[in-house]
Amino acid sequence: QGILERLDAGEIVIGDGGFVFALEKRGYVKAGPWTPEATVEHPEAVRQLHREFLRAGSNVLQTFTFYASEDKLENRGNYVAEKISCQKVNEAACDIAREVADEGDALVAGGVSQTPSYLSCKDKTEVKAAFRKQLEVFMKKNVDFLIAEYFEHVEEAVWAVEVLKESGKPVAATMCIGPEGDMHGVSPGQCAVQLVKAGASIVGVNCHFDPETSLETVRLMKEGLQAAKLKAHLMSQPLAFHTPDCGKQGFIDLPEFPFGLEPRIVTRWDIQKYARKAYDLGIRYIGGCCGFEPYHIRAIAEELAPERGFLPEASEKHGSWGDNLSMHTKPWVRARARKEYWENLKPASGRPYCPSMSKPDGWGVTKGARELMQQKEATTEQQLRELFQKQKI
Amino acid sequence: QGILERLDAGEIVIGDGGFVFALEKRGYVKAGPWTPEATVEHPEAVRQLHREFLRAGSNVLQTFTFYASEDKLENRGNYVAEKISCQKVNEAACDIAREVADEGDALVAGGVSQTPSYLSCKDKTEVKAAFRKQLEVFMKKNVDFLIAEYFEHVEEAVWAVEVLKESGKPVAATMCIGPEGDMHGVSPGQCAVQLVKAGASIVGVNCHFDPETSLETVRLMKEGLQAAKLKAHLMSQPLAFHTPDCGKQGFIDLPEFPFGLEPRIVTRWDIQKYARKAYDLGIRYIGGCCGFEPYHIRAIAEELAPERGFLPEASEKHGSWGDNLSMHTKPWVRARARKEYWENLKPASGRPYCPSMSKPDGWGVTKGARELMQQKEATTEQQLRELFQKQKI
Amino acid sequence: QGILERLDAGEIVIGDGGFVFALEKRGYVKAGPWTPEATVEHPEAVRQLHREFLRAGSNVLQTFTFYASEDKLENRGNYVAEKISCQKVNEAACDIAREVADEGDALVAGGVSQTPSYLSCKDKTEVKAAFRKQLEVFMKKNVDFLIAEYFEHVEEAVWAVEVLKESGKPVAATMCIGPEGDMHGVSPGQCAVQLVKAGASIVGVNCHFDPETSLETVRLMKEGLQAAKLKAHLMSQPLAFHTPDCGKQGFIDLPEFPFGLEPRIVTRWDIQKYARKAYDLGIRYIGGCCGFEPYHIRAIAEELAPERGFLPEASEKHGSWGDNLSMHTKPWVRARARKEYWENLKPASGRPYCPSMSKPDGWGVTKGARELMQQKEATTEQQLRELFQKQKI
Amino acid sequence: QGILERLDAGEIVIGDGGFVFALEKRGYVKAGPWTPEATVEHPEAVRQLHREFLRAGSNVLQTFTFYASEDKLENRGNYVAEKISCQKVNEAACDIAREVADEGDALVAGGVSQTPSYLSCKDKTEVKAAFRKQLEVFMKKNVDFLIAEYFEHVEEAVWAVEVLKESGKPVAATMCIGPEGDMHGVSPGQCAVQLVKAGASIVGVNCHFDPETSLETVRLMKEGLQAAKLKAHLMSQPLAFHTPDCGKQGFIDLPEFPFGLEPRIVTRWDIQKYARKAYDLGIRYIGGCCGFEPYHIRAIAEELAPERGFLPEASEKHGSWGDNLSMHTKPWVRARARKEYWENLKPASGRPYCPSMSKPDGWGVTKGARELMQQKEATTEQQLRELFQKQKI
Repeated sequence: QGILERLDAGEIVIGDGGFVFALEKRGYVKAGPWTPEATVEHPEAVRQLHREFLRAGSNVLQTFTFYASEDKLENRGNYVAEKISCQKVNEAACDIAREVADEGDALVAGGVSQTPSYLSCKDKTEVKAAFRKQLEVFMKKNVDFLIAEYFEHVEEAVWAVEVLKESGKPVAATMCIGPEGDMHGVSPGQCAVQLVKAGASIVGVNCHFDPETSLETVRLMKEGLQAAKLKAHLMSQPLAFHTPDCGKQGFIDLPEFPFGLEPRIVTRWDIQKYARKAYDLGIRYIGGCCGFEPYHIRAIAEELAPERGFLPEASEKHGSWGDNLSMHTKPWVRARARKEYWENLKPASGRPYCPSMSKPDGWGVTKGARELMQQKEATTEQQLRELFQKQKI
Repeated sequence: QGILERLDAGEIVIGDGGFVFALEKRGYVKAGPWTPEATVEHPEAVRQLHREFLRAGSNVLQTFTFYASEDKLENRGNYVAEKISCQKVNEAACDIAREVADEGDALVAGGVSQTPSYLSCKDKTEVKAAFRKQLEVFMKKNVDFLIAEYFEHVEEAVWAVEVLKESGKPVAATMCIGPEGDMHGVSPGQCAVQLVKAGASIVGVNCHFDPETSLETVRLMKEGLQAAKLKAHLMSQPLAFHTPDCGKQGFIDLPEFPFGLEPRIVTRWDIQKYARKAYDLGIRYIGGCCGFEPYHIRAIAEELAPERGFLPEASEKHGSWGDNLSMHTKPWVRARARKEYWENLKPASGRPYCPSMSKPDGWGVTKGARELMQQKEATTEQQLRELFQKQKI
Repeated sequence: QGILERLDAGEIVIGDGGFVFALEKRGYVKAGPWTPEATVEHPEAVRQLHREFLRAGSNVLQTFTFYASEDKLENRGNYVAEKISCQKVNEAACDIAREVADEGDALVAGGVSQTPSYLSCKDKTEVKAAFRKQLEVFMKKNVDFLIAEYFEHVEEAVWAVEVLKESGKPVAATMCIGPEGDMHGVSPGQCAVQLVKAGASIVGVNCHFDPETSLETVRLMKEGLQAAKLKAHLMSQPLAFHTPDCGKQGFIDLPEFPFGLEPRIVTRWDIQKYARKAYDLGIRYIGGCCGFEPYHIRAIAEELAPERGFLPEASEKHGSWGDNLSMHTKPWVRARARKEYWENLKPASGRPYCPSMSKPDGWGVTKGARELMQQKEATTEQQLRELFQKQKI
Repeated sequence: QGILERLDAGEIVIGDGGFVFALEKRGYVKAGPWTPEATVEHPEAVRQLHREFLRAGSNVLQTFTFYASEDKLENRGNYVAEKISCQKVNEAACDIAREVADEGDALVAGGVSQTPSYLSCKDKTEVKAAFRKQLEVFMKKNVDFLIAEYFEHVEEAVWAVEVLKESGKPVAATMCIGPEGDMHGVSPGQCAVQLVKAGASIVGVNCHFDPETSLETVRLMKEGLQAAKLKAHLMSQPLAFHTPDCGKQGFIDLPEFPFGLEPRIVTRWDIQKYARKAYDLGIRYIGGCCGFEPYHIRAIAEELAPERGFLPEASEKHGSWGDNLSMHTKPWVRARARKEYWENLKPASGRPYCPSMSKPDGWGVTKGARELMQQKEATTEQQLRELFQKQKI
């Protein structure tokens, strides 16, 4: 059954977790460029991560094609061996995802994300060409559906959806925005409306914000769609980091990004709360992005097991709400084998000289950016960067 | 070259990280029993983790035989399929480790750890028999050397070393203790002396405490050896969690153990400080235990690259001290591409309702335990547990 | 010159600080009832506190008549000696304030606050009678102007203003509300409009919220007045506690209220920021409420000294931004004698087991309260309390 | 009855709180010099503070003569009006203390503290002359007993005790040291022994450290006296700030000293724990120093009311363990009217960007200082300061 059949039937679809962060920690992705040449260089590592998500309960395996547009791979060319072409990276990603998907009951989704072409003000034709190049591989490899994800500007996301719709396959679209909306100030509700009008059957958010903030953004999208009398399935794939303190551009601006985020990592119990809240909000495509490890995905599957009627395979190695601790030798650890304990725990960081929240670095810039945009002096991030360098915004 | 040849020549040997915690998060190990039947059930997952540590710089791959003594596997029998014998688990562990070690320049170490037999007061013969059973597999599979690790009681550790020494191979021995010493109150210095006298060529600590605390314990071991005019190589494989607030029994007693430890995870920069400090203290076998992921091991290898003269393979995907951020699009993120930034960052947890430290649960018990032991009323943890249940210590 | 002449001329008027909290710590007021019988029992203590505020820069001395309506004093009768009549308490308060005001250049303001009569649903006539009784004393003692303060319900505040206006003297009115508005859900903007229409020449907020939150509330009041094309002077007298985490009812609901608020006390530097921000917002009557000690009032006067052209008397014992530390014997303390140091300091609490924020106790109740009010089932706090007891809201 | 009769009879004697910090906040003392010219300039303010401590339960009123030696007043001459002589300051202090003491049942203690003469290496004769000058006033005004307090060097404290003993009156001596001992490295036990041998009948600590740390220091003093078979009464007058993170020189080195200490202020409940612990340790002269306000002293008196058989006067305005909250209007605040609530509360600071602990500024210097002293290159703080300036210790 395809993605839309499942969602139309009221099924819960569980997404997968974050590849670039997980593989960076495993030694296969470089932070900064964040490009996915590992599909060619180290297929066994990519395959194993797909397999772990599958075991944890993912119903969708996304091809590891994040930032795999040709312009991005070239732009980061010094990192990628010259002989690894954009086409090879995308093809290998499809092959690996399909191989693992066939080990279970999962769909393969081909994914595109924002491009340097757009940010450097290339025109619509050029940007669309970048997406089309990836789409050709997805069609050749016959993925089950398509995802346009990680867009900060709804204009570019709409272009991506338009290209992907040429395929005739179902299209999902998620933006990496918070409740304040996209970088041009378009509200979440308006973004959702534009994406659905462009052809997306599933809309929502991914990355940049923590689960709580992301759900608030999806709620605003839902409201926007209702007001516009449009229908679409809802989707959320947030960070697995607590980021209540970040500004409009999300966790990129936090001083801890990307190498000091450890104390912010969410627990499995945080994810169970997220999964429940997402479900209650009407979201039926529930997954994760950066920071989500297999055990976080399993937590979604365990929380929603009553609704779905089954547990994921990896739950053979996990007791509900810590009940496997009931066999622990120390009595005070045995006392932790219950839901109330983990649900109410306020975990310490063991870091007495650290604050509980940070002031984002880029806040002022973001604010300056918004004002500049309103003044029509700069309409792209690229222009803003130039202004930044010239004027010390 | 063998482990002792390397250490005698002054080389730095980098250990690997923590298998039970990493594989629990990947879905292959159950918290509570923590047993390694995955070597038979899911060899590909174990193999991949070994490979990641190898790429990250590990010179030693430990067989994934933690808690793989027959009494432990039986004791946790409900988790392990009846047909997976102790022998199979241990053999598969050796095969996988050797396979991956041969992909690079690593040694294979066969490992034993503390047994339920000892804790339930079985006699020396019986406890030694358990170790001997595992040793037989290690000999058959011809591992390069042996490690007795994760012992809370020096008496049992000494028995383990005595058995392992029967093989004629080099033996390393680490205890999971802090500066207060073992559960019978034997000081770190005395523990080290007893282990060396029993035949260990390498001694130190693993697990239970954070890097800083563990180094203090090894320092005390070093002092004890010097006072006794004994020579041995030093080794440390601490947690990758900040635990300044834990009591004598280490992180087990923290309320966050084992499912809420996320905010305590150390960063790669914390590990670089640890590696430097360990080196300065004269430790030459430097690795990690629970919580250590491949990127933490890579951080050891990168910190000590000037001394060793080379970087690990996985550093192709990592810039020194964040220098790969210098290509980031946002100027304030580019400003993070330098050592001073990451060295001085005090990371926030994004958890405003959480404290920075916890009061350990088992503290009172630990204290009661010590007093009881001094009164000679209880000499094992098992007896203490019984007393605990009867008397509400 | 009277209060309105000063404000109309563009002068900054500095209010005084919080009497009930300061005198509770000095041993003259009982937390819980918070009644001001000390004016009769211990006039020297009240006089001294007035004098300290005067020295610190206060231009207005409020009579210590908080909660000094007859119904409140009777309601708390077990605390007040039977022979101390409401009239005596109010008269003594006027006498002491005038005595100290005459030592400097300060005005005396007679103050009334919310009554038990209103909360227990007495009718308008009865509630107004309570205010009128206090007003008679203020007229007899010829205070300079009148303040209606600490009202949670704008309806009662309007009644108070109407009574006070009968005197012909200028009337200021402040509510103890936050940005969410009064307990019936009337927005700050609407509250301000109603108060000005009832006759108040000065409107704003006092108590219940920290400086930052209070200024946001006054900002909303200002917007409301502008939208209604009404003119009035603005006034703010917030808490001297950090309360970013409290709900609609303010600091009462924080678990630390009232005996564990110490870690929340604001520094003099926090107050300088508050004073500046208040000034920039157009507020010209700037003072404080619970938690404000004389040194906090002095900080207002010092921050605004450039605009006012003079320092308060107590600044003879205080250097601007810590410059008196330049003579300290220890060089690293001398290094603190500068604005940048104190402006950027993030003070630690020295309490490692404590969180940085609390969850308010009454939050759920507050939320339930709002819903109940919307359902018209309960229109007063008294009714809510009864519902609370019956239905466990 | 005199101080020794009371203590010999087993009575608990309650000291008073901190004058310089309390009067700084009230506007009468300048931070930095911290000199007590207010006794002449503003006697009513000093009188009122004495009265509040008396009401709160103090059995001893110390003359406000801290840093009132002639060399200190001259050294800080730019702050003190030329016409206020050292003699006048000390005489006025005695008169005010006596006047208030006579309102109740309190003793007057004349106090001396460390001198600039000692720190600048003047000889014994000169330093003693400074103490003798103050003592003459105390004799003329006939104080009840004498206190030598706030000494960082036991040598100077011994000189002070020797001078004070010339009077024939009882002498108490407290040092502002922590468990690491005085600035020359003399241990607390040795300090106590030297002070008793010099003639002190009461010994202990005041200032610089929080209650918990101070009690540990007194415990070490007690052990030292027992080992030396000496007898003396014990005394403690700690800070009312949490300072677990400070180094050898105490709170001076904390970055928050002296204008950002607010989040560290202890609650009344912290003080009750302190009073109980002090009592259990055998201390019978229990008071406070910087940060202690009247309500903190009242908390000592309330905690020890069962042993003493009576409550202080100010308890008429305070219920035991918050029981006056039982009349509060909000049910969830009424629920706080009990000991368990306040005893277990972990108060939040409401400061999400702040850490829970600080790194002391002067730590390195302190450590360098200790080493230098051991090398006999510097024996006074003055010399250390010079070395600091020359060599950047």
